[in-house]
Amino acid sequence: MDETVRAAISADLAESNGDPGQTVSRLARTKPWQPYLEASLGFRNHWYPAFFGHEIGEGEVKGEVVLGERIAFKRVDGRVYGFEDRCAHRGVRFSSRPECYTKNTITCWYHGFTYSVQTGKLETIITQPASPMKATLRTYPVEERNGLVFVFVGDAAPPPPLEHDLPAGFLKPGMVTRGVRRTVHCSWRLGAENGFDFTHIYIHRNDALIKARGRLMPFASQFTSDGRSTLQLVEAEDGPKGLYVHSTSEPPIFEVQIEGQTIRSPRAPLNDEPMPPRTVITSIWLPGALEVDNFPVPGTIQFEWYVALDERRHTYWEVLAREVANAEEERRFYEEVDDVWYNLSLTKGFNDSDVFAREQMDLPYGEEDFWHRERLFEPDLYIVQWRMLASRHNRGIQHRLGSAQ
Amino acid sequence: MDETVRAAISADLAESNGDPGQTVSRLARTKPWQPYLEASLGFRNHWYPAFFGHEIGEGEVKGEVVLGERIAFKRVDGRVYGFEDRCAHRGVRFSSRPECYTKNTITCWYHGFTYSVQTGKLETIITQPASPMKATLRTYPVEERNGLVFVFVGDAAPPPPLEHDLPAGFLKPGMVTRGVRRTVHCSWRLGAENGFDFTHIYIHRNDALIKARGRLMPFASQFTSDGRSTLQLVEAEDGPKGLYVHSTSEPPIFEVQIEGQTIRSPRAPLNDEPMPPRTVITSIWLPGALEVDNFPVPGTIQFEWYVALDERRHTYWEVLAREVANAEEERRFYEEVDDVWYNLSLTKGFNDSDVFAREQMDLPYGEEDFWHRERLFEPDLYIVQWRMLASRHNRGIQHRLGSAQ
Amino acid sequence: MDETVRAAISADLAESNGDPGQTVSRLARTKPWQPYLEASLGFRNHWYPAFFGHEIGEGEVKGEVVLGERIAFKRVDGRVYGFEDRCAHRGVRFSSRPECYTKNTITCWYHGFTYSVQTGKLETIITQPASPMKATLRTYPVEERNGLVFVFVGDAAPPPPLEHDLPAGFLKPGMVTRGVRRTVHCSWRLGAENGFDFTHIYIHRNDALIKARGRLMPFASQFTSDGRSTLQLVEAEDGPKGLYVHSTSEPPIFEVQIEGQTIRSPRAPLNDEPMPPRTVITSIWLPGALEVDNFPVPGTIQFEWYVALDERRHTYWEVLAREVANAEEERRFYEEVDDVWYNLSLTKGFNDSDVFAREQMDLPYGEEDFWHRERLFEPDLYIVQWRMLASRHNRGIQHRLGSAQ
Repeated sequence: MDETVRAAISADLAESNGDPGQTVSRLARTKPWQPYLEASLGFRNHWYPAFFGHEIGEGEVKGEVVLGERIAFKRVDGRVYGFEDRCAHRGVRFSSRPECYTKNTITCWYHGFTYSVQTGKLETIITQPASPMKATLRTYPVEERNGLVFVFVGDAAPPPPLEHDLPAGFLKPGMVTRGVRRTVHCSWRLGAENGFDFTHIYIHRNDALIKARGRLMPFASQFTSDGRSTLQLVEAEDGPKGLYVHSTSEPPIFEVQIEGQTIRSPRAPLNDEPMPPRTVITSIWLPGALEVDNFPVPGTIQFEWYVALDERRHTYWEVLAREVANAEEERRFYEEVDDVWYNLSLTKGFNDSDVFAREQMDLPYGEEDFWHRERLFEPDLYIVQWRMLASRHNRGIQHRLGSAQ
Repeated sequence: MDETVRAAISADLAESNGDPGQTVSRLARTKPWQPYLEASLGFRNHWYPAFFGHEIGEGEVKGEVVLGERIAFKRVDGRVYGFEDRCAHRGVRFSSRPECYTKNTITCWYHGFTYSVQTGKLETIITQPASPMKATLRTYPVEERNGLVFVFVGDAAPPPPLEHDLPAGFLKPGMVTRGVRRTVHCSWRLGAENGFDFTHIYIHRNDALIKARGRLMPFASQFTSDGRSTLQLVEAEDGPKGLYVHSTSEPPIFEVQIEGQTIRSPRAPLNDEPMPPRTVITSIWLPGALEVDNFPVPGTIQFEWYVALDERRHTYWEVLAREVANAEEERRFYEEVDDVWYNLSLTKGFNDSDVFAREQMDLPYGEEDFWHRERLFEPDLYIVQWRMLASRHNRGIQHRLGSAQ
Repeated sequence: MDETVRAAISADLAESNGDPGQTVSRLARTKPWQPYLEASLGFRNHWYPAFFGHEIGEGEVKGEVVLGERIAFKRVDGRVYGFEDRCAHRGVRFSSRPECYTKNTITCWYHGFTYSVQTGKLETIITQPASPMKATLRTYPVEERNGLVFVFVGDAAPPPPLEHDLPAGFLKPGMVTRGVRRTVHCSWRLGAENGFDFTHIYIHRNDALIKARGRLMPFASQFTSDGRSTLQLVEAEDGPKGLYVHSTSEPPIFEVQIEGQTIRSPRAPLNDEPMPPRTVITSIWLPGALEVDNFPVPGTIQFEWYVALDERRHTYWEVLAREVANAEEERRFYEEVDDVWYNLSLTKGFNDSDVFAREQMDLPYGEEDFWHRERLFEPDLYIVQWRMLASRHNRGIQHRLGSAQ
C-alpha cells in the first residue's frame, strides 16, 4: 500500500480517534467529494466504452449516446472513427439513416452534407456542390481494445493514454472478452458504488451463482477495525487511478443477534467444515469501472463499466475476460460464457440483483436529495475513498450541451 | 344548526344583501380559503386510511404512499405498526423486498439494517453487527377501525384522537364495512368537491344505479333561496369537523326552459305520481372524507376518502358500511356488496361517473389555474363552506420531503 | 416579381457583395426574424384549418386543440360555430361528453350549464334554472371552404378575411379537395421549413412516388448564383402573404465529386435522354401553409398546413385539390386519391419521408438550441426569406393561457 495513502487514511482515522465510523461521519459532513457530487453526467476528458467491436463491420456506421453526447462511429480499413452525430446544418443525426458514398466519408441523409469521418471536415454538399460553406464536426479519439471500442469524451488534445483510464487488469496480454451491456435507470455513480460496495454481497446470498460457487456463504465480510489493511490506492501519475479492497483474515459474519435470537446464515459452516480460500479481489477505477478478479470463477475477471447516458440513466457493461493461450481456449471460453455465465451471472442471474438494488436508489438519490441525506456506516469507508479518489483525479465535470462548462 | 355558524353564514349573506350568488362571488374574490389552496398534498397532522386491514396478515409487510410520504406497515400480534419506508442508510424501500428475521423487526434487503417496527430504532446491521451506528426511522401512529387501517401523517405527539378525523357516522357501534380503493388522476380536493357537490347528481341521471333506485329522477335539487336551512356545520372542539347538507322541502327541478322550449327530465313524474321521501344525507369531513347516509339503499352508508398520493393524483376510497346484529347479517351484507353494489355502484357503475368528472377537472385545475379562474354559482356555497371549514380547522399543510415547511 | 422585394433582396445581396452565402450568414447572425423565433405556439390573429368538414354532421359537436387553445365546434343549420371548449364554471371540456338539448345550444355534462353556440352566452343552468349567474364563453369565427373548416384564433373583431390567410391557389373556383391530417412531433415551423426546403428533394430520391413520376431524378436543383430569379414575394396589403420559388433554367445536379470519385445519381440521364419540362411550383404562405402546384401530377395541387398543437407538436395537413367541371370528375378525383395518392404520396409514401426528417429536427431545435446554432447554406436563403416574411406580416404571437401576452 502506498505510504502517502496510508498516511492520509491514518490521518483521517486519527482525527476520529481511530474510529472508522467517526471517520465516515466526519467525512460525510464535510463532503470532500464535491466534484463527484457535481458529476451527474460523468467526468469529462476520460475514455469510456461505447460499444463492442463486433457491433460494427467494415464501412458500417452506428450512433451512441455517451455522457449525454451524441456520437457516431464508422469503421474504415478496420479502424473505428468517432464524430459528432449531428449535422452542422440542421442538427439531425447521421446514424438515424446512415449514408456513405465513399470509404472515408459520411453523408447526411437530409441535404447531402458530406464530411470526412477522420477530420470531421465538410468535404462537399451533394445538393449544392458549388457551395463555399465551411464546417467541421467535432471528432472523438477512438481506440479498440480487447473487443471493446473506447471513445474519449473531452477536449484534451492529444488525449491522455487509454491505459490511464482502464482497470489495471484489463491490460494483461492474451486476454479475450465477452459481455453484454444494458441501460440501468439510475445515476452511473450509484451503479459504481453498488459494484464496489463491501457489504452488498448480502443481496446475492440467494442467487443461483452463489449457490453454484459452494455451500458456504456468510452474510458479509467483517470490516477490519482500522479500515486500513484491506485498502490499496493506485494513484501513480502515469497510470490508472483506482482502489483495491483485499480480503482480510478476519472471520466472515455467519450469525447475528436480533431481539436476543441468534440468526444464522442458512449456509453457515456445519461442524468443522472449513472455509474455502478467498480469491476474489475487487477494485474500482476512474472514470467508473470495476474489476473483480477470479470471478465468477478463478482465472476469470469480470469487468464492469457504468457510463452516464443522462443524469438518471447509465449504460451498464458486464464483460468477462480470460487469458487464453490459443484459439481453442478462446472458443471454449466463449462457449462457457454463453452456456453458463450468461444465465447464471450476467443478464439473468447475479447481476440482476445488483440492477434491482441500483434502480431502487434512483428515488432517494434522484429525487430526495440522498446525496446529502444518506447515513453511511463503517464499511462505506471504501465507497467514501472511491468518491475522494474520483474527486482528486478526475479531469473535469461533464455538462449538458449549451449549459455553462 | 350551530348558532355561531348560522350567524357566520347570515353575516356572509347580509354583506351580499341576502343573495347567495353575491355571497359566493364575494367569497370567491377574497378567497378566505387560502390554506386549502396551498394543500395540494393534503393537510398534515391528520389521520388517513392507508389500506384495508385484510390486505396485511400477521407478520406481513406492505408499503403505501400517503400524502407523498413513503410508509411501510407490519402487523405484529394483530396490531399494525407504521414506519418510514426508507432505510436511513441509502434510502431504499423496505417494502420492495420485505425481510423479517424476527417478529418485531424489519430488515433492509440491501445491507441488512434491522430496525424495530415499534420504535424505528436501528437494532443491528446484519452485514456489520459490530457497527456502533445509531439511527431511527420515523414511526407513524396507526389505528385499525372497522376494517380500515388509518395512519397519522404528522408531527403531533401524541396525535389527536382518530375519532376527530372520522366522519361522525363511522363511529356507530356494530358496523361492518366492505369497499375498494383506486388511484384517480386529479387533486384530492377535486375528488372531495365532486363528492359533496350539491348539483352533480346531474351526471348520474343515466347511471344504472339511479334507474334501479326508482323511476323518478330530477335534474337536480332546488337550492334554497337563503342557503341556510340545509347546511349544518359540525365544529365542536373535541370532535370531528364536518358539514352536512340536509334535503329541503323545495320541489326538485324536473324541467327547464332552453331557447323557449321546455326540456323535461325523461324521468319526471307522470300525472300525480308522488315523489318518494328523500332519505339521503351527505356530509363532508376533515381531512377529506365523505359520508352519504342511506346510500345506495336505506340502512347503508357510503363512506369515501380522497387521500393525496401526489399533487395531481389521489387514492379514492369507496366503502359501504352497515350496522349488523350478528354474523349471518354480516355475511349477507358482504354478499350483497359483492353481488349488487360492486358492479352497480362502486367500481363499474355510479362512481365511475364521478371519477370521469373528477379527472376532467385535472386539466383546468392542474394546468390552467382554475383555482383562481373558476366561476362558482349559488349551490357551490356548500363547496365554499367546505373549503372554509377545511381552512379553519386543518392542523397544517403537507409539503414535499426537503421543501420548506 | 415585386420591385420592392427585388430591391430588398438586392440590398441584402449588395451588403454581401452579391454572395448569397454571405447574405445567409449575415442574416443568420443578426436574425431579423425574432418574431418567428418567439412563435413556438404559432402566430395569433390568423385563420387555421381545424378539421375536415365531413368530420362533423348537422347538430354534432367536436373538440380540437389549435395553437394550444381548446376549441369546440357545433354544426347548426349547416354552419359550423366555434367556442371555447371549457365550461366557465369548473373548466371541463364540453366535447368530452357533448350534450345538446336544443339546436343552438351546448350543455355542459357536469352541471348543465347551457350556452348559445353562436354568442357563447350562458342561457340557463339546468341544475339551477333560477340562478342569476352570467357568463360568456369566448367564441371563434369559423369558415368552411373547399371541405376544410377554418377557425380564427385571435382577438381581432371582425377578423381579417379568411382569404388573406390562404394559399393563393386555394381560392380557385370549382376546386374539390381530399386529404388527411396527423400529429407530427416537432415545432410547426420545422414542418413548414421542410415543406418549402429547396434542396430537401434529396430525401425523396428513393420514394416510390418519385420513381412513378419518371426515370430521371437529380440530387437537387441548382441554386442560382444571385438567388433572385426564382424568388417571388407576394405581399400586397389586401391579400395573402407568401413566397414562390420558381424553377430556374440552370441544369440540375446529377453528379458530385467526393474523395476524387464521381458520384452520379442512379437516375441521371443516359446518353442524350432529355429532361422533362419542370412544372412543379412551390409556395409558402402565412400563417403556415404550403402550396405545391402540379403535384403529385400536373393539374393537381397539394396543399399543406402546419398548425401548432403545442410547442413541440403540430397537426400536419396534406390536402390534394383539383378543379373539376362536374360531379363525375369529382368522383373520379376522389377515387384517384384513394387508390393512388393515398399510399404513394400521402400517409404511407412520399410525405412519410418528410415526417421522418421533421421529427429528426425536434431534438436539435427542441432541446439543443439549434434555432441559434444552425448553420444555414445558400439555398436556405428561401427559408430565411420565409422567416422574414412571417416576421414582417404576422398579426401577433400566440401565448399559453395565463402567460403574459
